[in-house]
Amino acid sequence: MAIVTLLMDSGESDHYVAAVKARIITINPGVRVEDISHRIEPNDIGHAAFVLRSVFRDFPKGTIHLVGVDAVGNRGDAYIALQLEDHFFVGCDNGLFGLISDKTHQNLCELNTINAITTTFPERDIFAPAAVKLASGVALSDLGRPMPFFKKMIDRQIKATRKQIAGHVIRVDGFGNLITNIPKDVFETLSRDKTFTLQFGGEKFRRIHTQYHQADEGECFIVFNSLGFLEIGIYKGNAATLLGLDYDSIMNITFDE
Amino acid sequence: MAIVTLLMDSGESDHYVAAVKARIITINPGVRVEDISHRIEPNDIGHAAFVLRSVFRDFPKGTIHLVGVDAVGNRGDAYIALQLEDHFFVGCDNGLFGLISDKTHQNLCELNTINAITTTFPERDIFAPAAVKLASGVALSDLGRPMPFFKKMIDRQIKATRKQIAGHVIRVDGFGNLITNIPKDVFETLSRDKTFTLQFGGEKFRRIHTQYHQADEGECFIVFNSLGFLEIGIYKGNAATLLGLDYDSIMNITFDE
Amino acid sequence: MAIVTLLMDSGESDHYVAAVKARIITINPGVRVEDISHRIEPNDIGHAAFVLRSVFRDFPKGTIHLVGVDAVGNRGDAYIALQLEDHFFVGCDNGLFGLISDKTHQNLCELNTINAITTTFPERDIFAPAAVKLASGVALSDLGRPMPFFKKMIDRQIKATRKQIAGHVIRVDGFGNLITNIPKDVFETLSRDKTFTLQFGGEKFRRIHTQYHQADEGECFIVFNSLGFLEIGIYKGNAATLLGLDYDSIMNITFDE
Repeated sequence: MAIVTLLMDSGESDHYVAAVKARIITINPGVRVEDISHRIEPNDIGHAAFVLRSVFRDFPKGTIHLVGVDAVGNRGDAYIALQLEDHFFVGCDNGLFGLISDKTHQNLCELNTINAITTTFPERDIFAPAAVKLASGVALSDLGRPMPFFKKMIDRQIKATRKQIAGHVIRVDGFGNLITNIPKDVFETLSRDKTFTLQFGGEKFRRIHTQYHQADEGECFIVFNSLGFLEIGIYKGNAATLLGLDYDSIMNITFDE
Repeated sequence: MAIVTLLMDSGESDHYVAAVKARIITINPGVRVEDISHRIEPNDIGHAAFVLRSVFRDFPKGTIHLVGVDAVGNRGDAYIALQLEDHFFVGCDNGLFGLISDKTHQNLCELNTINAITTTFPERDIFAPAAVKLASGVALSDLGRPMPFFKKMIDRQIKATRKQIAGHVIRVDGFGNLITNIPKDVFETLSRDKTFTLQFGGEKFRRIHTQYHQADEGECFIVFNSLGFLEIGIYKGNAATLLGLDYDSIMNITFDE
Repeated sequence: MAIVTLLMDSGESDHYVAAVKARIITINPGVRVEDISHRIEPNDIGHAAFVLRSVFRDFPKGTIHLVGVDAVGNRGDAYIALQLEDHFFVGCDNGLFGLISDKTHQNLCELNTINAITTTFPERDIFAPAAVKLASGVALSDLGRPMPFFKKMIDRQIKATRKQIAGHVIRVDGFGNLITNIPKDVFETLSRDKTFTLQFGGEKFRRIHTQYHQADEGECFIVFNSLGFLEIGIYKGNAATLLGLDYDSIMNITFDE
C-alpha cells in the first residue's frame, strides 16, 4: 500500500488537517499518512512549491502527495490528479504543480467529474478519496475526465552570462538562512578557471564554503546546499534578520576577467 | 485495534505530547496514534471543544479520543472516560465534553478510582493507560467507578425568530475566517421565500455564496461551511484582521418583511 | 522493528523534517517514526537536552532517537551513535548527549567513517541511514569507528547545604510554567523536620502543593512535577509573563533554624 503525504496551508490549531487524515483512514485504514508540512503560509503557492519540490523525490516512487494549499484556487481552477516523475499529486490546478518539476507529466485528469459534489472543503471531500484510490492501486485515468495539460507559471529565473550570474532569494527558511535560485552546476560551469565576487546586501565575498561550520560564529557562510542551490546564512545566527534580506532579495556573482 | 487520537493544549516545544505517545506505544505498540491538534490555546475549553466536535465524527466509530486540554481542571473535577455517538473520550470532567454533542452519553465512568495515583501529569499517567485499555477492547465500565452524568456547560446560543437570527463568531480559524454558530438548517427554514440582510462589523450583505471563490480577491465571501455553519472570510485575505472582528463578535441576519 | 524518534530544531515550515522521515521510510518502510518535537529553538542544545531527557525513557528500550539539533555542530565535532540506558542516540557530538543522563554509555562510535560523504544535511544523509540500521538490528559497533568518550558539558548545578538550596529555572514551558533544577529527593532530605521559605522574584512562599489546582485561579502553585523537579506556575495563567521570570532566573529555598 502506497504512502499518502499531506501538505496544507491551514496551520495546526484547527480541525482541517485531522479531518483530511481521518477521512483517509476511515476509507482505508491500511493507508500510511505522513505529514510534509501544514505550516505553509495561507495560499502561498511559492512557499508550498518550494517545500514540495525539495522533498517529494525523497519519498518512495509511487507516493501520493495530497496538496491542500490554496485548495479552492481561483474561479474556474479544476481539481486535478497527476503523475509526474513516478509520483502522484492531488490538488487544485492553481499553478503550484507547474513549479515543482520541469519534466512532462505522465498522466493527468480532472477530479470531481464523475458524480460531482459541491463542497467548501475539497481537501477532505475530493482530494482525500482520490488519494486513497491511488494508494489502493486504482488507475489515475479512472479518477476523472482526461485533461491535456495543467497550469504552468513561470518561476523566478536566474540571468547567467560569462560575466555574471544574477539570482534571487527564493526561500528564507526557519533558521533565517537565505536560499537562492542559483544552481551549483551553472556556477561551476561559468566559474571554471576564474575568480569571482559574490554580492548581496552590502556584503562582498570571494569564497564558497563546503560546510556551514567553515564560517566562524556570527560570520556568513556561503554553501551550495543539499538541494544544489546557493545558500547564505550566518553560522549560529539568523541571516535574514542580521543582513536585512528577505524573499526576493538580489544575489549577484560577478566573474573576474 | 482501534485508533487513539490526541488533542492537547501543551504546544509542541516541550516533551508533553511525546510523553503521552511514548506511554501509549510502550504499553501496547499495536495502537495507532493520530494527532488532532496540540496547538489549542492553554486551558481553552471552547477552542478545544470546537476542534473536537468539528472532526471526531470523521474518524471511524470506536476511535478513542484522548483530550489533554485543561487536563488538571478545577478542584474536584474527576478524570473520566465516556462513550458518546459510538466514539470514546478520555479526559477531565471540566465541561469540555458537554460542548461536543447534544446526544446522551452511552457509557460513563470516573477514572483513577481503582488503585488511584497522584500525578501532576494525568494525560500520561491516567489518560494514556485508559485509552490503551479501550483500544485493546476492555469495556469502559471496567475502567473505574460508574458515574451518572458529566459536567455540561451552556454554549453560546443563537436567537432565532421569524424576523431575525442573532449569532456570534465562535472560532477565528488559522486563515482568519470567522466561523459563526448560525446553522444552515435554521437559516433555510426561516429564510424561505424571504430576502435577507446580513450584518457584521460595519458591513451589510444580501447574498450567501456556495464557494469561497465566488467573491473577488480581497472581497468578503459568506458561505455555509463544511460544518454547516455560516462563515465569513475575505477571499485570499485575513477577515479577522481586515474587518476588525474576533471571537464573540456579533453576526445578525434580518429577514425582510 | 524498533521505533525511530525525531527531535529537530528546524521548525515545521520547511522540508527538513519530512526529508529525514522520507529517507528513513525509503530505506526501510517497516520502521515506525515518531516525532518528539521539531520546535526546538535553532541550535539550542539546552532546550533540546531538556526535552530529550524528560521523555526518552518513556519510549520502549531499544528505541533509536535521531537528534537533529545544532546538527552541524562546531568545527571538528564528530557525528556519533551511542547506546545509553538501553536506548540508542544518533546525532552530532556537540555536547547535547552529555546533558541527558549521568550514566556511562554502553556503546559509542563515530559515524561517517566508512565511505565518508560530505553533506550540509547530515540529519538526512548520515543520521537517517544510521538510525535505520540500528532499527534493523545492525550492531552499533558496525556503524563506524569506535570512540572512547563523547563531549560532556557541565549543566547548571544546584547549591545545596543544610541551610539553603539555590537553584535556577532551566525551562519555561509552553504554559509559561517555570521548571527548576531543584530535585524532590534533595529537598526532602534537607527539609526533614524543618519549615522552609521559597523565594523567587519578589515572592515568598512557605508551602509546596501536590496538585496544580490546590492554588486558586491566578495564584502561584508550587509542585514537584512529573519529572521530579520543583515547578512554579500560575494556575490558569502564564507565570513567566506574570512574574517576570525567565530561563536562568534564581529560585531559593531557605530552611528555618
